[in-house]
Amino acid sequence: MAQFADDKPPFNSLANMAKWASDLGYKAVQIPTWDARLIDLEKAASSQTYCDELKGTLADHGLEVSELSTHLQGQLVAVHPAYEELFKGFAPKGMNAKQRNLWAIDQVKMAGTASKNLGLNVHASFSGALVWPYFYAWPQRPAGLVEKGFAELAKRWLPLLNHFDENGVDVCYEVHPGEDIHDGITFEMFYEATGKHNRVKMLYDPSHFVLQQLDYLTYIDHYHDFIRMFHVKDAEFNPTGKSGVYGGYQDWRERPGRFRSIGDGQVDFQSIFSKLTQYGYDGWAVLEWECCIKSPEQGAREGADYINQFIIEATEKTFDDFADAGISDEEFKKLLGID
Amino acid sequence: MAQFADDKPPFNSLANMAKWASDLGYKAVQIPTWDARLIDLEKAASSQTYCDELKGTLADHGLEVSELSTHLQGQLVAVHPAYEELFKGFAPKGMNAKQRNLWAIDQVKMAGTASKNLGLNVHASFSGALVWPYFYAWPQRPAGLVEKGFAELAKRWLPLLNHFDENGVDVCYEVHPGEDIHDGITFEMFYEATGKHNRVKMLYDPSHFVLQQLDYLTYIDHYHDFIRMFHVKDAEFNPTGKSGVYGGYQDWRERPGRFRSIGDGQVDFQSIFSKLTQYGYDGWAVLEWECCIKSPEQGAREGADYINQFIIEATEKTFDDFADAGISDEEFKKLLGID
Amino acid sequence: MAQFADDKPPFNSLANMAKWASDLGYKAVQIPTWDARLIDLEKAASSQTYCDELKGTLADHGLEVSELSTHLQGQLVAVHPAYEELFKGFAPKGMNAKQRNLWAIDQVKMAGTASKNLGLNVHASFSGALVWPYFYAWPQRPAGLVEKGFAELAKRWLPLLNHFDENGVDVCYEVHPGEDIHDGITFEMFYEATGKHNRVKMLYDPSHFVLQQLDYLTYIDHYHDFIRMFHVKDAEFNPTGKSGVYGGYQDWRERPGRFRSIGDGQVDFQSIFSKLTQYGYDGWAVLEWECCIKSPEQGAREGADYINQFIIEATEKTFDDFADAGISDEEFKKLLGID
Amino acid sequence: MAQFADDKPPFNSLANMAKWASDLGYKAVQIPTWDARLIDLEKAASSQTYCDELKGTLADHGLEVSELSTHLQGQLVAVHPAYEELFKGFAPKGMNAKQRNLWAIDQVKMAGTASKNLGLNVHASFSGALVWPYFYAWPQRPAGLVEKGFAELAKRWLPLLNHFDENGVDVCYEVHPGEDIHDGITFEMFYEATGKHNRVKMLYDPSHFVLQQLDYLTYIDHYHDFIRMFHVKDAEFNPTGKSGVYGGYQDWRERPGRFRSIGDGQVDFQSIFSKLTQYGYDGWAVLEWECCIKSPEQGAREGADYINQFIIEATEKTFDDFADAGISDEEFKKLLGID
Amino acid sequence: MAQFADDKPPFNSLANMAKWASDLGYKAVQIPTWDARLIDLEKAASSQTYCDELKGTLADHGLEVSELSTHLQGQLVAVHPAYEELFKGFAPKGMNAKQRNLWAIDQVKMAGTASKNLGLNVHASFSGALVWPYFYAWPQRPAGLVEKGFAELAKRWLPLLNHFDENGVDVCYEVHPGEDIHDGITFEMFYEATGKHNRVKMLYDPSHFVLQQLDYLTYIDHYHDFIRMFHVKDAEFNPTGKSGVYGGYQDWRERPGRFRSIGDGQVDFQSIFSKLTQYGYDGWAVLEWECCIKSPEQGAREGADYINQFIIEATEKTFDDFADAGISDEEFKKLLGID
Amino acid sequence: MAQFADDKPPFNSLANMAKWASDLGYKAVQIPTWDARLIDLEKAASSQTYCDELKGTLADHGLEVSELSTHLQGQLVAVHPAYEELFKGFAPKGMNAKQRNLWAIDQVKMAGTASKNLGLNVHASFSGALVWPYFYAWPQRPAGLVEKGFAELAKRWLPLLNHFDENGVDVCYEVHPGEDIHDGITFEMFYEATGKHNRVKMLYDPSHFVLQQLDYLTYIDHYHDFIRMFHVKDAEFNPTGKSGVYGGYQDWRERPGRFRSIGDGQVDFQSIFSKLTQYGYDGWAVLEWECCIKSPEQGAREGADYINQFIIEATEKTFDDFADAGISDEEFKKLLGID
Repeated sequence: MAQFADDKPPFNSLANMAKWASDLGYKAVQIPTWDARLIDLEKAASSQTYCDELKGTLADHGLEVSELSTHLQGQLVAVHPAYEELFKGFAPKGMNAKQRNLWAIDQVKMAGTASKNLGLNVHASFSGALVWPYFYAWPQRPAGLVEKGFAELAKRWLPLLNHFDENGVDVCYEVHPGEDIHDGITFEMFYEATGKHNRVKMLYDPSHFVLQQLDYLTYIDHYHDFIRMFHVKDAEFNPTGKSGVYGGYQDWRERPGRFRSIGDGQVDFQSIFSKLTQYGYDGWAVLEWECCIKSPEQGAREGADYINQFIIEATEKTFDDFADAGISDEEFKKLLGID
Repeated sequence: MAQFADDKPPFNSLANMAKWASDLGYKAVQIPTWDARLIDLEKAASSQTYCDELKGTLADHGLEVSELSTHLQGQLVAVHPAYEELFKGFAPKGMNAKQRNLWAIDQVKMAGTASKNLGLNVHASFSGALVWPYFYAWPQRPAGLVEKGFAELAKRWLPLLNHFDENGVDVCYEVHPGEDIHDGITFEMFYEATGKHNRVKMLYDPSHFVLQQLDYLTYIDHYHDFIRMFHVKDAEFNPTGKSGVYGGYQDWRERPGRFRSIGDGQVDFQSIFSKLTQYGYDGWAVLEWECCIKSPEQGAREGADYINQFIIEATEKTFDDFADAGISDEEFKKLLGID
Repeated sequence: MAQFADDKPPFNSLANMAKWASDLGYKAVQIPTWDARLIDLEKAASSQTYCDELKGTLADHGLEVSELSTHLQGQLVAVHPAYEELFKGFAPKGMNAKQRNLWAIDQVKMAGTASKNLGLNVHASFSGALVWPYFYAWPQRPAGLVEKGFAELAKRWLPLLNHFDENGVDVCYEVHPGEDIHDGITFEMFYEATGKHNRVKMLYDPSHFVLQQLDYLTYIDHYHDFIRMFHVKDAEFNPTGKSGVYGGYQDWRERPGRFRSIGDGQVDFQSIFSKLTQYGYDGWAVLEWECCIKSPEQGAREGADYINQFIIEATEKTFDDFADAGISDEEFKKLLGID
Repeated sequence: MAQFADDKPPFNSLANMAKWASDLGYKAVQIPTWDARLIDLEKAASSQTYCDELKGTLADHGLEVSELSTHLQGQLVAVHPAYEELFKGFAPKGMNAKQRNLWAIDQVKMAGTASKNLGLNVHASFSGALVWPYFYAWPQRPAGLVEKGFAELAKRWLPLLNHFDENGVDVCYEVHPGEDIHDGITFEMFYEATGKHNRVKMLYDPSHFVLQQLDYLTYIDHYHDFIRMFHVKDAEFNPTGKSGVYGGYQDWRERPGRFRSIGDGQVDFQSIFSKLTQYGYDGWAVLEWECCIKSPEQGAREGADYINQFIIEATEKTFDDFADAGISDEEFKKLLGID
Repeated sequence: MAQFADDKPPFNSLANMAKWASDLGYKAVQIPTWDARLIDLEKAASSQTYCDELKGTLADHGLEVSELSTHLQGQLVAVHPAYEELFKGFAPKGMNAKQRNLWAIDQVKMAGTASKNLGLNVHASFSGALVWPYFYAWPQRPAGLVEKGFAELAKRWLPLLNHFDENGVDVCYEVHPGEDIHDGITFEMFYEATGKHNRVKMLYDPSHFVLQQLDYLTYIDHYHDFIRMFHVKDAEFNPTGKSGVYGGYQDWRERPGRFRSIGDGQVDFQSIFSKLTQYGYDGWAVLEWECCIKSPEQGAREGADYINQFIIEATEKTFDDFADAGISDEEFKKLLGID
Repeated sequence: MAQFADDKPPFNSLANMAKWASDLGYKAVQIPTWDARLIDLEKAASSQTYCDELKGTLADHGLEVSELSTHLQGQLVAVHPAYEELFKGFAPKGMNAKQRNLWAIDQVKMAGTASKNLGLNVHASFSGALVWPYFYAWPQRPAGLVEKGFAELAKRWLPLLNHFDENGVDVCYEVHPGEDIHDGITFEMFYEATGKHNRVKMLYDPSHFVLQQLDYLTYIDHYHDFIRMFHVKDAEFNPTGKSGVYGGYQDWRERPGRFRSIGDGQVDFQSIFSKLTQYGYDGWAVLEWECCIKSPEQGAREGADYINQFIIEATEKTFDDFADAGISDEEFKKLLGID
């Protein structure tokens, strides 16, 4: 809901947005914990009553909470100095880098408690980034830089992961460029660095993989055990003779890689839903909408239709009516002429 | 020759390398000005005699200088603070950022004079980078950041461009990730920021475009007027279900995108040579070799063969034996039945 | 509507067809000026009352006129002798080539005036063709033939273009094989030959580009400023081991390239609508239907659905909530460590 | 050899060219009968001695004649009026259309006799074209036009085909845009129209199929029985956003489809040679060279290397060492448990 | 209906399934003759009344019978010993191979009579297989094995084919791996072996061609005259680095090639429906459903929608309004300047 | 050498073939142990002298033995009854199935001892096949059939594997259709069934993967640790509208999938050699030649050239001249502004 929240109705309160989303056919909403129009995070972390009321507001419209998210606060858990100025708007004004970091850690912690209070067992966030400026091999990275970066990142997240564990909630890191966890390899690096913490999971959003030209279908084969959340977001990548994946410092509308409304991009959602169903995924399919061309209202409207069309009811049929219960040793030997 | 220079013969002196290159069939060599084993830049800038001797050393082996290069020094003309530590090895030890910058500017200037002394009219360098950490749109860039970045970059290069102009030498920026000039769009931004300076040209190296998935053939259609140098360097990009263009902080050997010896990668050199010939390119085809798998000696050996095979002698035939000298107004009217 | 008009109801009068089109969900209709069942061109050019009534007939069904078209008459403005016999059916019987030409010029002129009377500012036509038989380079063309051809073509159209200019109407040439304007290059030739007349625009119909294997998406990048009309027509090209683009003198049904009902061919309308929206196209999307396999009634019915599905409401959202108003010189210097 | 003949040595006489071709590694040459520098057609048709001498000149350089060709004369056997002016240079000056036609017919006839005198059993020519301007379906063709066109074409060729039959020579029509026989379908039309004349064969040149996007490999599956000659000529087709198969009235160098020196285009010669070998083709592989970029000398030099590399010695090995001579009825029944 | 029949309502009786199918929008059902819940084959072969009642049961729900099928019985007409054990469940218990064979032949015969009684003229079956274990060339097949196999297969089917002929019914063999008729070539072999029996037709099911990577569209060009039935069944083939077309002895869910619910696989039904319409196919489009991921209920529901969307009403329009009735000899000569 | 051995010189003795192979540029030969013209397996297993002489014969021509192979004998270790008749030619005449099996086991054993005597540590063979007729899922396999098949296969091979282990020799199973080990999955099944025996390795031959459309490059990523032998054999797969992977019971020449001489097929050897080099493969690249079109002599000649061209000398260069020895904790904290 983060992309739709606004100061104008129906996008200015949880109740209004709930009605709007429900009318469009959605069954649940993700609540961004940084948007005071939608949730009071502190209250949610401390008051069960508040949480029950919040769930009631949604239930009035037939909706549930799919999960809370702390993308902006998670981002501030680890920030390379080159980006401090650009991220400072995520935290209350007047803080310095150190203060923002402490505030963010506290926020993420509260989101863990609030999730439990809301009866949720998954949570969405960003990992933050310490070594992102060094992703390319120019200039050459000093040996050990990446390893030290992930050790530091794990050191910061481990207390939080433990807190979420106590509350029975998985932390699903959105795999996203600009974060230290931005592809499968870096997710593995982080997972290793935390000593394979059992709460380290991932939020799968194929749009970010289109933009980095990663094979997002084989990705599911590798990581389905870790995928606990799924963003239905579309994207396209159309390189030209003037620009490629880096986008030439241009804005979204002009970049070869850009996000699109569901169905207007290049993501093969049909195959994604097939694979997730095959691997037994049982989480939500959450529309995340961002398009530089189509209006958000049209996008949200069409998005619900698309998702419904992709949903797969799993089969229990196995087409083995004629296969007997098995083959005995006796029968096997006979079949192969073994004496 | 930068990739081959070494402390062991035949890679430890210009004379030795000249013999080696000549034996392999090369006709000219690019001299990296930062490698004291190959050239004394200060002398070359101040002494015509030294330059004549240097040319003589090469001529003894039937070689010419194709151009001087100042990649490392050009890089230091503009460095974002996040990379100062990593680039400091390019300059003499003990300097701070400001001192390195001044030293680099002086070096580039000398290379301009030295080029003239060596009878050259093109020079290769890097633009350096001020806003590279902000290439992605996360975090969102403040409005005006890119524009200010290029204004500053142009401000630093304009005196140098003017100096090269006085010496009759074009500055060919290698279009390269990690530099502010890393694709066609950013080259245009820089060109505009310098007021379309007549010495702003480019070094075309398709390998860097494979790694960013830019259409390197259409690129030539757009920018052939600016292409004054050409690096014959190969690369491949094989994205997997674990990593894409950002490479997962891995080393070259493990990255989906990596450089390869000529002929082992995905660059379609045949089409490149066709296009350059069609547009009248008359510069050198310079082997730049870097491969994480094949040995450099084998690479250099095969590289010369490949380049010779790709070279195209331009045709003067037009197949118009039966086309008369043209059609008169009279004939035209008759042909179309116009009275 | 030209493809549907017929002597049987509901295809035999404007009122009947208007009802039919409106019921299918169309919002406007293109009126072919050569079909007396639909419009009396002479009256429309001379009587404002007639035009108001015509608009009223359509308005009764919630329809507008999208534009008038003079494809057949425009064709006769320029005809190579090889085709005179085949095109003569477009003009009243008994005329010779010269008379047909004069008649056609007059018709096109009237269409200009009628457009103004109907409150329209765009008009659709064909350029006609003088040098089409010489499109291939066998036999070799005499030097200057093409240039002279376009000079003559411009000479014939300039008075008409000026007349349309006086009536405030753009002439949109349908880019079409068989016409001198049949691709981007030839459109440019004509535009240049008219001295870049400000009323020279184009009608974009991707089906004709599929059949000539032209890249119809990049085409929009090149020519969006000229595209004032858009035909939603589908086509497919499936070359075999027996025939390719020339079709082996066969009929449509057997040709490798053939027109198809919307959605049954190979045109990527989704990308077209995205590009046109991105470039701010604000004209109509006009269904032109022609399929050698599916019935026209089914085609028209499905066509309206397709078009509605493709229509994009443009976004005004820019996702810059956290981007401040810009970056000051001070901040910029601080960010980059410049003193 | 038509593309190389010139007034400058070594391209100005048969003996000189023979030496040149032989030095490059060629084994035979095609002689264009319209080039007086290479052959005196009248003499060749009437004098066995002349023919023996001509063969001797070539034999001195280890060469044979692969075939005679009458492309230009064959073209004049059937010319649509729109092209009379453009083709008139193929015949002696001062003739009118009728006279050119008669002259051409006589020439082709002489080539038949000359072929026999030279010990050849195949001959290369063009069919000429009567209905080429009507290849597209705009304007719509009157019913029967194509059928009448081919009836007329067959009527003109039948006496010639009979003459070739008497001399034991096949007529191999080069399948070529601009001719009535320009793809498989039109070849079949002509073959039918001649009553399936046993001397109607074809010259296979894949370059013309690349330019019309016909599947030139499946073509061999369809027509291998008719293929008696093979031109090794390369081409490429790279459509853009500005032009496609029709080329926008541009010259070869600028057209998306254009001929290229062997190896520089898109023709998959390896698969062609495999298919021809598989089907038992035993004619020559004749280099036809035409490239708007590379010089003809380089092209001819590289062409011989390419052809040698592609030549396949047919296998006689069948890998059936362990397969017994066959299976008896008895053994078969036992194998399948049939009693 | 074979895949849906079950012991639970509504899948346990013809009446219940008819209602269910009709509600989903189906117009007809294929009846598998081996399923006693749906039909009593013996009665249907002997009693016209029973057949009329059966048709009545379906007619009550607006349904027809599209055809009867004897896949399981046809399979038993020819079984290689290696599979006897595995196929024995298709016949009543306690029979030996010979008895199963005779039983199956009798069943197929009855299906022929029953088809006539139900007013049908097409029937679906399998050919069975005698030489399937020898499809690969390892071990090498003895010469003549395949020929003898098809002679025996034809010998068994000819009496049945004659019986069907007497009843006016075509036998449509489903082209299917595991059967001797498993692709176009083997269908041709069988057709030849039966002396081109006029009742040998085929059931076209593209899913089996996806799994063997056969070009199922060109297939229609070759065999449209034989296609009298069409199964709308989807499939996908996604080979990996671990397994290809043979599937590594894995189950359907894990195989690279597997069946999918309509719309979830790789079959291009739009092109299939276009081709079948173009060739005048007038049989049913029968949904055959099998998916290892999606539930059968969802599959059947969506299947009806898909099929309706693909159905094409054939056009009668020819777009020749301006083409006159034809061209006379006179006009033809004038057009071409022939006197 | 198995494919070249023949009764005519130079293919009728080891010495003659050694000279022939050496002249072509080969460095080693694989010796098929079933060909008495090349080796006396019994002697080789029992006499060190014989082995030394054999090595000497090859050494005289500068050749080594790359490995012994027992493809035919390995095949007989496990044979499904359906193939007994067809494989019987591999063993001495007059044996029954049981006797052939025992003979084969003994032969394989001797090859193990002989390998040690020849100083080899790798051996090539086939696994044989017990359940190959059941690779497709029609008829449906009884549960447990595959598992029991592999258990039996492992039971037969374990004593042999232990014998090879005692002789210090790896058994490299050629992954091949028709064998139970025919892809990666089935190799894993066998490996598991042997309790992960340390001598279970594989012979990698990409041609068999082309024919089953398995991704042979990713295969190397999965199994490089097991690849101890590599056959350089080419193949192509060109499915048509008549046949796909099963080949329609046709012979090699007519099958869509067929073996080809190196360079004439579709195998991307360049990428294979790159991957093998990257993973440190240090075995031989053995030409296996089989082509239904090209002669074996031409194939062998060209094969040596191809292999030499593909061989990659591994690099030791790492391009880290400017990367310092690493980054200290201190430096890391400073870089990231951590205090």
